[in-house]
Amino acid sequence: MIQLAAIPTTAPENLDKKEIREKTQHFVKRLGELQRVMYAQGKYSALVVLQGMDASGKDGAVENVFNDCAPMGLEVVGFKKPTEEEFAHDFLWRIHKHAPLRGKINIFVRSHYEDILIQRVHKWITEERVEKRMQSINAFEELLAYDNHTQVFKFYLHLSKEQQEIELQQRIDDPVKHWKHNEGDWRERELWPEYMRSYEYVLNHSSIPWTVVPVDQRWYRDYIIAKTMVERLEQLELKYPEMER
Amino acid sequence: MIQLAAIPTTAPENLDKKEIREKTQHFVKRLGELQRVMYAQGKYSALVVLQGMDASGKDGAVENVFNDCAPMGLEVVGFKKPTEEEFAHDFLWRIHKHAPLRGKINIFVRSHYEDILIQRVHKWITEERVEKRMQSINAFEELLAYDNHTQVFKFYLHLSKEQQEIELQQRIDDPVKHWKHNEGDWRERELWPEYMRSYEYVLNHSSIPWTVVPVDQRWYRDYIIAKTMVERLEQLELKYPEMER
Repeated sequence: MIQLAAIPTTAPENLDKKEIREKTQHFVKRLGELQRVMYAQGKYSALVVLQGMDASGKDGAVENVFNDCAPMGLEVVGFKKPTEEEFAHDFLWRIHKHAPLRGKINIFVRSHYEDILIQRVHKWITEERVEKRMQSINAFEELLAYDNHTQVFKFYLHLSKEQQEIELQQRIDDPVKHWKHNEGDWRERELWPEYMRSYEYVLNHSSIPWTVVPVDQRWYRDYIIAKTMVERLEQLELKYPEMER
Repeated sequence: MIQLAAIPTTAPENLDKKEIREKTQHFVKRLGELQRVMYAQGKYSALVVLQGMDASGKDGAVENVFNDCAPMGLEVVGFKKPTEEEFAHDFLWRIHKHAPLRGKINIFVRSHYEDILIQRVHKWITEERVEKRMQSINAFEELLAYDNHTQVFKFYLHLSKEQQEIELQQRIDDPVKHWKHNEGDWRERELWPEYMRSYEYVLNHSSIPWTVVPVDQRWYRDYIIAKTMVERLEQLELKYPEMER
């Protein structure tokens, strides 16, 4: 049973930051190599789900961890408010479309989990529907895993409420970050305890497990995500296909 | 427990064919009315799955039963051999895309069930995968039902092996039907017992039930499908939306 309040949002103390950064660089490079083989082989695929509160560093993680991957084999999908057409379908309809093609890594910046997070926190859906959707999500992710050799990675970017304030304030203070500023984020922040409860529900009811990533220091976030990706992908039988003669 | 050998492929005896045809016309007309309200209301949708052996009359059912529906609210999707892109995804990927928009009736001529019928009969997939896919199908159809108010209709067009021969031969003899002739159909016909076993598995393991439609006489097929559709749709709260003032 995962309790978020019991998990630190910060890197372990006494870590050598320089050393961690070097290791991260190694993992990022290795991830690029593995992804190229995966793409050439066309057998496996990977789905990377990034979830976390506003300013938890989802975009930054994409930029830092996957920047050695070949763009041809990578697809980053940011899910925003559904369109009218999307709303006129079940909640997984728009998600399933973007499931990775064999060989590719698809990254979801926010995802199907929003439909049982933000929608639950604002009470737009009933608790009964939350449970049904959780079951549908489990069935959907299992389908990808067994039927398309999809490795499903799910990262919860675990941010402290204090650090969020610093990050959101920077969006106001730093002209380069102005475009990310959104008054709505400050309102959502007031619902922090409800969000934490909803995230805990998700973390504890997913059949494919999550990795909880402490993100108050961004260098540690990158390290954990890159390391997790590489260690799991190393276990697949990735190899360049042989030439047919 | 459904056993296909115990279910007739013919209409009950002593039916007044003329009377049935009149009733069918009534249901077909009523279906068109209901579909128009459904489209205007934009709340419910319907998925109609048509499955059956070659020459069981799937295309004819579409033509005869839905010809009073407004084309704008109707989408007929014929699933053939998957494309390369479709093969590089899980088997429900190409299916989910065509799930009905709220307000619409989508008809699948063949469907996701082919992936546990033809693929099983030819032993292209393991029995373990058949079971997993059956679970995925159940989860998928339930998702449509609870999350998008989709009425899921599934018709198994129950044809006798003898009648199939007559129908396939007509495709050879009648120039207007030549385009439907396919040598492969005669080869598939040799696998009749394996197909029946696979259909029985599907009929007995679906959580949303099937309607088994005797189709040796096409007028009876149309009657059962039209009647089933209308009777179920009549139970929904279909109504034209009121004008907002």
